[in-house]
Amino acid sequence: MTEQNRRLVLAQRPSGLVNESTTRMEIQPVPEISDGEALVKVRFLSIDPTIRTWMDDVPSYLPPIQIDEVIRSGGVGEVVESRCGAYQPGQLVFGMTGWQDYVVVDAGERAMQVLPDGVPPPLAIGVLGVTGMTAYFGMTDVGGVKPGDVVVISGAAGATGSTAGQIAKLKGAARVVGIAGGPQKCRYIVDELGFDDAIDYKNEDVAARLRETCPDGIDLYFDNVGGSILDDCLANLAMRGRVVLCGAISTYNSDEPPPGPSNYLSLLIRRGRMEGFIVLDYLDRFPPAQAEMAGWLAEGKIKSSEHVVNGLENAPDALNLLFSGGNTGKVIVEL
Amino acid sequence: MTEQNRRLVLAQRPSGLVNESTTRMEIQPVPEISDGEALVKVRFLSIDPTIRTWMDDVPSYLPPIQIDEVIRSGGVGEVVESRCGAYQPGQLVFGMTGWQDYVVVDAGERAMQVLPDGVPPPLAIGVLGVTGMTAYFGMTDVGGVKPGDVVVISGAAGATGSTAGQIAKLKGAARVVGIAGGPQKCRYIVDELGFDDAIDYKNEDVAARLRETCPDGIDLYFDNVGGSILDDCLANLAMRGRVVLCGAISTYNSDEPPPGPSNYLSLLIRRGRMEGFIVLDYLDRFPPAQAEMAGWLAEGKIKSSEHVVNGLENAPDALNLLFSGGNTGKVIVEL
Repeated sequence: MTEQNRRLVLAQRPSGLVNESTTRMEIQPVPEISDGEALVKVRFLSIDPTIRTWMDDVPSYLPPIQIDEVIRSGGVGEVVESRCGAYQPGQLVFGMTGWQDYVVVDAGERAMQVLPDGVPPPLAIGVLGVTGMTAYFGMTDVGGVKPGDVVVISGAAGATGSTAGQIAKLKGAARVVGIAGGPQKCRYIVDELGFDDAIDYKNEDVAARLRETCPDGIDLYFDNVGGSILDDCLANLAMRGRVVLCGAISTYNSDEPPPGPSNYLSLLIRRGRMEGFIVLDYLDRFPPAQAEMAGWLAEGKIKSSEHVVNGLENAPDALNLLFSGGNTGKVIVEL
Repeated sequence: MTEQNRRLVLAQRPSGLVNESTTRMEIQPVPEISDGEALVKVRFLSIDPTIRTWMDDVPSYLPPIQIDEVIRSGGVGEVVESRCGAYQPGQLVFGMTGWQDYVVVDAGERAMQVLPDGVPPPLAIGVLGVTGMTAYFGMTDVGGVKPGDVVVISGAAGATGSTAGQIAKLKGAARVVGIAGGPQKCRYIVDELGFDDAIDYKNEDVAARLRETCPDGIDLYFDNVGGSILDDCLANLAMRGRVVLCGAISTYNSDEPPPGPSNYLSLLIRRGRMEGFIVLDYLDRFPPAQAEMAGWLAEGKIKSSEHVVNGLENAPDALNLLFSGGNTGKVIVEL
């Protein structure tokens, strides 16, 4: 069975959520490697909202996934064969694996990195990986979080939002309010992660609750969702407030251009700033940030949770969990 | 006749453009002054789009003008009587005069400033005044214009836009493209003011012309108008492009909340920044900026033009000119 390479390729561009027509499972022989390459057996896939954006045929920060191409995805795997000095069989590595059982890597530009000893694979694609780094650089470098700030985070029970909120507290924010869907997630971010307050967007009036929880306005809004929540936060921005655009998950399954934030003129009246970023620009600054994050983890100052889905064939459903809000924390597919 | 004080007060909040119901002319006695005060006879009014926003009952960077209150406005006047050491009869002063014949000033927080010798009054409320300073700090401090930048400016034949474009060139921008309404304004900004190119939004496809005139994207967009032009510029933003929110004249007469910029996610994909400002925050930095501007004027490196309307009673029509695009350069009412 595992002597085959199962690959999930893009069969058809989705309209809305991915469904059974979006991907096609292909069975191929396990690839042969050449000199300078290694064969990696994929163990874990990192399921991120941005994968959905790569399925659309629109220009973005990476090219669209092409039809019949394997779905692009981060992941962790084990080196099972090597003809390359950079990798030894038995090593765990992480990088872009795609939704498949096996991937061939070399030591070049698209190389995978060897997992440091003692780092559990889920953390390498979660809080210590691209997800955690997105939270870290978005909150510190782009958002410029500082002691005393009132910080609001949407998608707060998700992988990036939950980490971003804890980083804000560790960096001295006076108050961190998370916006999440449902009472269970709201309890989780307050009781388990130490957020100061939570707004349940599925059951509460977000605009009213923002005024209530942030009566002096929002100094820093970390946006993972876009849509009406972005507008509500803009309306309650403090003087010189900052909006960090990390994602816009509420819009990714829409075929129409999303409505823009009609309260954007708050940026003018309150002298605010709205800024986007892509974490891949920070790759060369990952090591010290990962070291700081690892220290927080070791001291129990940052908590992470993973939502593990089993089986490559379930990767599309795992992706949809992000949009239905069916997950708390990092969604991972274990192969 | 002039021994009376005519005042235009807000009679009714406008819906759309101001009309004959919006303001009411009141005739009052010329005010008496007390110790520490001076009486100023108003000579020129500065007609700015922001006056329209103050007429709406919505929170902004200054409180709304109240019903029966004189219309707030900058202007230049002459001291005609003084019981205050700060002002001498015969001096020209500028500051907040309101739409009226006479204003009482003191030396306190809302004081007016004495016009330096040799500065023509229209320039004191134009290129050397708040309008010019808006262009200056928006382009330099907020926009961070730098040599080599590709700069786009909307409302480019208006008072602020025409100055902002010339400042961009003086600060080394590689290419400055103005967006204006009609062939005459487009010729004016290119032939008279030295813009590199112009887009006539009334007769051309703005998105297509932006791609044509800025094939490598826009490094800095100075937005005076909002609406679809903001969206078109966002769609053509260069990597790390900046959007300076100076105004949104296309939305000021709308009773509905304006549609937001639906291409705002360009800020994420292109790592861009959108930032608003209010020039009143820069008051303490006006003097060196005014000195630089005066130098450029003296050397003929900055040109300004004024559109003068005669008579206090015509101030509402003068305001509407800004929204119909009937002006080129600074609109001033001469009393």
